[in-house]
Amino acid sequence: MGEFELLARLRQRLRPPQGRVRIGPGDDAAVTVPGGATATSVDALVEGVHFSRDHGGLAQIGAKALATALSDLAAMGAEPGEAYVVLTVPPDLDEEGCLEALDGMAELAAATGTTLAGGDVTRGPSLAFAVTVVGHAQSADEFVGRDGARPGDALVVTGELGAAAAALLLDEIEGVELSGPAIEALRRRQLEPAPRLDAGRALAAAGARAMIDISDGLGGDAGHIAEAAGVGLRIDGEALPIATGVAEVASAAGRDPLRLAATGGEDYELLAALPTAGLDLAGLADACGVAVTRIGEVVRGEGVEIRLPGNRLLEPDGFDQLS
Amino acid sequence: MGEFELLARLRQRLRPPQGRVRIGPGDDAAVTVPGGATATSVDALVEGVHFSRDHGGLAQIGAKALATALSDLAAMGAEPGEAYVVLTVPPDLDEEGCLEALDGMAELAAATGTTLAGGDVTRGPSLAFAVTVVGHAQSADEFVGRDGARPGDALVVTGELGAAAAALLLDEIEGVELSGPAIEALRRRQLEPAPRLDAGRALAAAGARAMIDISDGLGGDAGHIAEAAGVGLRIDGEALPIATGVAEVASAAGRDPLRLAATGGEDYELLAALPTAGLDLAGLADACGVAVTRIGEVVRGEGVEIRLPGNRLLEPDGFDQLS
Repeated sequence: MGEFELLARLRQRLRPPQGRVRIGPGDDAAVTVPGGATATSVDALVEGVHFSRDHGGLAQIGAKALATALSDLAAMGAEPGEAYVVLTVPPDLDEEGCLEALDGMAELAAATGTTLAGGDVTRGPSLAFAVTVVGHAQSADEFVGRDGARPGDALVVTGELGAAAAALLLDEIEGVELSGPAIEALRRRQLEPAPRLDAGRALAAAGARAMIDISDGLGGDAGHIAEAAGVGLRIDGEALPIATGVAEVASAAGRDPLRLAATGGEDYELLAALPTAGLDLAGLADACGVAVTRIGEVVRGEGVEIRLPGNRLLEPDGFDQLS
Repeated sequence: MGEFELLARLRQRLRPPQGRVRIGPGDDAAVTVPGGATATSVDALVEGVHFSRDHGGLAQIGAKALATALSDLAAMGAEPGEAYVVLTVPPDLDEEGCLEALDGMAELAAATGTTLAGGDVTRGPSLAFAVTVVGHAQSADEFVGRDGARPGDALVVTGELGAAAAALLLDEIEGVELSGPAIEALRRRQLEPAPRLDAGRALAAAGARAMIDISDGLGGDAGHIAEAAGVGLRIDGEALPIATGVAEVASAAGRDPLRLAATGGEDYELLAALPTAGLDLAGLADACGVAVTRIGEVVRGEGVEIRLPGNRLLEPDGFDQLS
């Protein structure tokens, strides 16, 4: 496979530069005219670490590489702009496979208004993606960092938790009491995470003071918000929106569904701290296009406390699960 | 090695955000306020493909990963701004090794005015870097693309050619008539390429219509300029500025030094097409801070012709050397 030839074929599948992008793929660099402020995030997906080709097709994997990067932009409340992709091609992936992965990525890019503006292709020992995404806002203050939570703020989470972790358990268990479609839905939550871009912008507009995407598990990511602002977070385990099917998988695996929802990674939902004054959860869910659940509050102090039924606390060492 | 812990240690070594960078590493995304227009490029360096830890230390390798990306910004005439780094850590690289690689990168970043504004660290089968760099200009027209060469334009190249290719030959040959320091200088050209950022801005200011960095060899990269504008390039082989020591290595290896200079990759010099009216090579070299040599011209037609002594033409299949 010639590098130039593959690059040329990849480029043919991309939309011509438009909007902020003045020069797209094919030059030494892409040229954009950003306007206000930009938020930039990079994310890597490596075969054998973050995904396996045994689960999920190449299009799904390519889309997920972009989705996980876009999820960081969602957590800033950014409008998605451009993506730049490094594709590392292993010996056992042919040109068609590369194009399939790119097609999956390009489809999510189009659906989210993201322009694939540049990239690099290299040989390497295993399939890997490194995706840089650039998001936009009128000014830097419109972005929501991790560090603004204040005691008294409400903690809210988008969507449902635990589905991705439950999906990973499916291969280890037998006799789960779920229909085929319900199992497929769980697997899709793990293989096809949806970056909560609309929700991120809606939460930012609603005055979110701190926001993060839940990629490493609610407990661990909540810890980042607590640490960044020097505050404590109290989360009510019984309030957590547990995804459909998680209870059944947890039961078959002898696991606690609340623990899966509180510590399982890869949910890619958003956790935000918002002032309680005027907080309208129903209106917020409407603006977010996804459920928004109040799960706790910001308090003086430090650390994250997740209270389970019977007044037990979730052990903090359950938090530090890394994907 | 915990991912969070390593990230924290990496971050401690970076300078606090300044200038355009409002939020640096540690949040979901870095926040910048770009001003005019941006040029963005990504570059991957993979062990076993682009480098070996047997040659060169980790600091050199980290610096080279950034240098090759910055070289693309140089070729746009951009002012370097921010860099975002994905570091893939293999099982046999410990935390100190990661920090050494980052230190090398951070040193070059400081020397070039580049802010390391974000990144990601992941495990993987082999050491790899994916570096995204963002450069700046007041407006998009200040950037020099590959596609503006016009018949009659002069072709100039910065610095000297062939040193990196000669350095790679050193391991295959014996009895080269060069001093130890001369050999070391050649090796450094391959291991520590200098992105021609000042030269790129000076060439842009001097009216360069097309520019590219010579990463894949002069012949191949000249071909990109020819193709992008639908013109031909005529290069005078005898005019090529061949680096010190290349003749001696070529002689010991039974190779043609001109061919090494014309087709060897990794020189990371700049090739530019400029209007001949008012072309002042001495003044340009002064502004570039490096030698600038006129090596040919842009003509009607297509393709690249490199004329060797005795009116021979360099065979075009010698061009397509990919690193």
